[in-house]
Amino acid sequence: MRVAVFMGSVSDLEVVKPAIDTLQSFSVSCEVHVLSAHRSPEAVAKFASDARNNGFGVIIAAAGKAAHLAGALAANTTLPVIGIPVKSSTLDGLDALLATVQMPAGIPVATVAIDGAVNAALLAVEILSLSDSHLAATLNEYRVEMATKISATDQEISSQYSF
Amino acid sequence: MRVAVFMGSVSDLEVVKPAIDTLQSFSVSCEVHVLSAHRSPEAVAKFASDARNNGFGVIIAAAGKAAHLAGALAANTTLPVIGIPVKSSTLDGLDALLATVQMPAGIPVATVAIDGAVNAALLAVEILSLSDSHLAATLNEYRVEMATKISATDQEISSQYSF
Amino acid sequence: MRVAVFMGSVSDLEVVKPAIDTLQSFSVSCEVHVLSAHRSPEAVAKFASDARNNGFGVIIAAAGKAAHLAGALAANTTLPVIGIPVKSSTLDGLDALLATVQMPAGIPVATVAIDGAVNAALLAVEILSLSDSHLAATLNEYRVEMATKISATDQEISSQYSF
Amino acid sequence: MRVAVFMGSVSDLEVVKPAIDTLQSFSVSCEVHVLSAHRSPEAVAKFASDARNNGFGVIIAAAGKAAHLAGALAANTTLPVIGIPVKSSTLDGLDALLATVQMPAGIPVATVAIDGAVNAALLAVEILSLSDSHLAATLNEYRVEMATKISATDQEISSQYSF
Amino acid sequence: MRVAVFMGSVSDLEVVKPAIDTLQSFSVSCEVHVLSAHRSPEAVAKFASDARNNGFGVIIAAAGKAAHLAGALAANTTLPVIGIPVKSSTLDGLDALLATVQMPAGIPVATVAIDGAVNAALLAVEILSLSDSHLAATLNEYRVEMATKISATDQEISSQYSF
Amino acid sequence: MRVAVFMGSVSDLEVVKPAIDTLQSFSVSCEVHVLSAHRSPEAVAKFASDARNNGFGVIIAAAGKAAHLAGALAANTTLPVIGIPVKSSTLDGLDALLATVQMPAGIPVATVAIDGAVNAALLAVEILSLSDSHLAATLNEYRVEMATKISATDQEISSQYSF
Amino acid sequence: MRVAVFMGSVSDLEVVKPAIDTLQSFSVSCEVHVLSAHRSPEAVAKFASDARNNGFGVIIAAAGKAAHLAGALAANTTLPVIGIPVKSSTLDGLDALLATVQMPAGIPVATVAIDGAVNAALLAVEILSLSDSHLAATLNEYRVEMATKISATDQEISSQYSF
Amino acid sequence: MRVAVFMGSVSDLEVVKPAIDTLQSFSVSCEVHVLSAHRSPEAVAKFASDARNNGFGVIIAAAGKAAHLAGALAANTTLPVIGIPVKSSTLDGLDALLATVQMPAGIPVATVAIDGAVNAALLAVEILSLSDSHLAATLNEYRVEMATKISATDQEISSQYSF
Repeated sequence: MRVAVFMGSVSDLEVVKPAIDTLQSFSVSCEVHVLSAHRSPEAVAKFASDARNNGFGVIIAAAGKAAHLAGALAANTTLPVIGIPVKSSTLDGLDALLATVQMPAGIPVATVAIDGAVNAALLAVEILSLSDSHLAATLNEYRVEMATKISATDQEISSQYSF
Repeated sequence: MRVAVFMGSVSDLEVVKPAIDTLQSFSVSCEVHVLSAHRSPEAVAKFASDARNNGFGVIIAAAGKAAHLAGALAANTTLPVIGIPVKSSTLDGLDALLATVQMPAGIPVATVAIDGAVNAALLAVEILSLSDSHLAATLNEYRVEMATKISATDQEISSQYSF
Repeated sequence: MRVAVFMGSVSDLEVVKPAIDTLQSFSVSCEVHVLSAHRSPEAVAKFASDARNNGFGVIIAAAGKAAHLAGALAANTTLPVIGIPVKSSTLDGLDALLATVQMPAGIPVATVAIDGAVNAALLAVEILSLSDSHLAATLNEYRVEMATKISATDQEISSQYSF
Repeated sequence: MRVAVFMGSVSDLEVVKPAIDTLQSFSVSCEVHVLSAHRSPEAVAKFASDARNNGFGVIIAAAGKAAHLAGALAANTTLPVIGIPVKSSTLDGLDALLATVQMPAGIPVATVAIDGAVNAALLAVEILSLSDSHLAATLNEYRVEMATKISATDQEISSQYSF
Repeated sequence: MRVAVFMGSVSDLEVVKPAIDTLQSFSVSCEVHVLSAHRSPEAVAKFASDARNNGFGVIIAAAGKAAHLAGALAANTTLPVIGIPVKSSTLDGLDALLATVQMPAGIPVATVAIDGAVNAALLAVEILSLSDSHLAATLNEYRVEMATKISATDQEISSQYSF
Repeated sequence: MRVAVFMGSVSDLEVVKPAIDTLQSFSVSCEVHVLSAHRSPEAVAKFASDARNNGFGVIIAAAGKAAHLAGALAANTTLPVIGIPVKSSTLDGLDALLATVQMPAGIPVATVAIDGAVNAALLAVEILSLSDSHLAATLNEYRVEMATKISATDQEISSQYSF
Repeated sequence: MRVAVFMGSVSDLEVVKPAIDTLQSFSVSCEVHVLSAHRSPEAVAKFASDARNNGFGVIIAAAGKAAHLAGALAANTTLPVIGIPVKSSTLDGLDALLATVQMPAGIPVATVAIDGAVNAALLAVEILSLSDSHLAATLNEYRVEMATKISATDQEISSQYSF
Repeated sequence: MRVAVFMGSVSDLEVVKPAIDTLQSFSVSCEVHVLSAHRSPEAVAKFASDARNNGFGVIIAAAGKAAHLAGALAANTTLPVIGIPVKSSTLDGLDALLATVQMPAGIPVATVAIDGAVNAALLAVEILSLSDSHLAATLNEYRVEMATKISATDQEISSQYSF
């Protein structure tokens, strides 16, 4: 199953790029789209309605301000939709966070941290790993690498700064 | 021209009712709907797309939490859309306010105060009054009455509490 | 009908300029003013009181901090008043947003996003379009262009980043 | 010199009452008014413009939501204006606090705590005490009584709960 | 695959119950636990470490205040973990929301709305539906029922309140 | 060493009582005071200045709103001072939290959760346990009991609600 | 009567300087101090206790973070104390605002906007003007100049940008 | 007794460095670690469990965003744990503050200001000073130096800016 990665504006690309890179590092195919819940609502609704039949397993959507993109996608599919609230020029991302996460009962959006693109991708991989033991194994390796890396940093910093 | 009044859930009716009553007091016809940007997205999009041709001049939309209803309507019409953020069980309406007002450039929503249904209706009447001199005159009377009423209250309280 | 565009301080000009430009792109005449609810209250009250008779249809007002300008104008006219909360050096615009949008029942202000000047102008055009079919048509074209533009961006980004 | 006490709505009377009572306990004359920056702007401007000549020394103004009352009074007088932000049904008074305190350079409002009516009155008395040695002495007594009272409470609680 | 439902305290049961009921309505087995990231950290870590091998597909975790439960589970598994921020006696759930959603890169938590237990369960079902076509079909029916129900409400309210 | 427990007002007693009870359950002597940083500043400064010589090891201070009590104590002693921000009638305790925790470099206050009296007492006991092995052992027992209790609750809820 | 201007740290000087300059422009003598409620509490208390006898009429205090300076001064004098919350490296001044304005009943602090030094000075001048008709006249001139200046700006911008 | 200083990521080193320097200036040994509650949970739990037996008296933990590090350490030890909330790229440190301070009853974290590393170290020294009279004396000297320094600054600024 593929992952669809949406952003509400091309200006979100820098924030979203780490999600694309992370998916690529797990060899999970992704289709990237720039579509807006407000400026191209029909295209958004159509994509979401067809997504499951078109072989997608997860949809990731990044948007800022009154961030409706993830919710608009979720309203038109029963695939898991992951929302990335994007920090914009005011309010430090709080507006996007609340507009993404505070969905009404019935239509969930799996929200990650503000500008949390890497975790959006990892969450998508975790979801796909339920039916893909190779992905599950790769996720384990990713965790081990993280722990190893932080352990190495710990030893370096600890020996340098302890007294 | 008529006004359409939307709420995202029937539980918002108590908050929205003063808007309906205010429109009625100005003899402005209104059509009331309970539709959700997330649970019935197609009906919302269809209504908005047809609204201008169906004789509507303004759309009022009340919703709580990740309040996308006004934005979803605005995405599908060029009529002025007025958003009423509704206070729900958490966050005191801040989530609904930000999700309603922080619209991206291109698709405006005219946002009033949290639970500000009376003002949503008055704003709709003000908009319609631009091409309806009777409404304009009635708005002036409404203002005079308000000033008169507060002046009477002022005299009563002032004489009772000053010393 | 013309649109009046107010800002509370000349330092808001950079934020307000896109509203002026947007109105110009729709060929809607606008009169620009720098007046303050606090530093020149009489001029503000006088302008608003005369605005309808002077041929204005909508007033746009941008102000920061304890942003009273839109409210002070709205208190003296029954024309629709659109408020643009302006982000200043502290609090990221939240103060201006709340001071603009949380108006008491009786005197509405149609609030747009923090620094949302383009949408303030579009909302004014939408309001004027109710009695101006040419503006209504131009708004439709504006929407189509937006959708076309985002669709082109979508195809470009999608082909470049999908894998 | 007298003190003027304003509230934006008669519903604020319960919050404002302790200010009136405190002024009375200091034998400072006060004139109480219910006037609104938005619903009766002319009356507000006129009162403030004449206040110094009419023998007032301080103006206290209580208002909720987009609390412009203190600012509207301050815009029309060079008397010290004290603002009491009033908590209303949403946002816990934060809107009124920011709308009262975040005044632009040039027009100050002396803001006290949300619903802080007693302190508004005490601040007014402190201001008047600069040219009234009797008030200054009474303020000192008030402080001594406060300290005495809290000391008595301290002894009672300390003996009861220490172990 | 089963779903594990965690709460940090038995006092969260009322908030969590709708998640359990929703899972039951989809005939998805669930195992319910009351364990705390702070008061029983070892049990939490152990459960998460073994969860995939024990046949779980998704873990749901509800906690209030400095809500670390979902993060602590996610730190010990590569299964998708869904966090429900629980509103407690202060701060209206904002503390729990931020403590749940703002996870650092590497360890995602899929966060739903404050007290959003129904959506947590629906998200879990959506995730499981990727490899279970029966669940996918049931989710579609659930959506259709929602739309049907809101449409019926719409007609009832519309006929009663429009004029 | 004894613990001093301060509250800024007798109205905080209900919030503070669990701290006193917790200290008592650990057989740590405590002296309780009701003194205010603002209404009895000299008494506060004097107590703090003498506290170390008078055999105190830790000071706990609870206060609401512009909660200066803990900071005022800390300014006059080098004993560890623990601050409990108290929720009052507005702002949900956020004011007290920020006024307690955001101390400038040089004068620390160890801040616990809003209304977190039990943890203030436990933190005091932890501090005293560094030179009191009996307290250290009792703290361990307290933790074991907590884990045991939550484990029992877990089994009860798990068997009742899992399916 | 003189004005005392306090800042909690020399790093606040840039924020406070406009207050000193404004007082100077009104020929109001001022004495400037860098003293901290936490790092030099005795000096602060002593200054405030003696301030009225030493010929001061108003005290201005600027501080950031857990801004207790104004409150600590107010606790030791019945002169009006004006607080300037100073924005520091985090939280955009909200911490200083709440720590300054949310004073408990009994000890008022007249709070101005975050970094609002000019208004703090103007408020002090307004207070002193009650017994100084020359200052009252100068304040009027200041207001007239402000209105004249904004009117000139208005004409310039209006003629340049209207169309 | 030694102090352990933890940071959740090496990117926090700049914020944490002043804590290390302060401990060094008091000649308190410290062991520095970079370990993450989420990326290396076992190492964190193991360190905390052994910390008292390994001669540590206090643990300091700095983390940003959903800052669980201090809480995760506290969950595994009865030593006092001091949390430093670290400001990251969004939300100005509010997320880290709430995730650190709002601990549930039973497991306290002594929280200092956002980025408040110096105070974290001073608090640790205050705690250790209870059984180390040399440290107590050094803390007194530190306070005297602070007061002396601010007094010198006061005289310099006062003589330069008063008029």
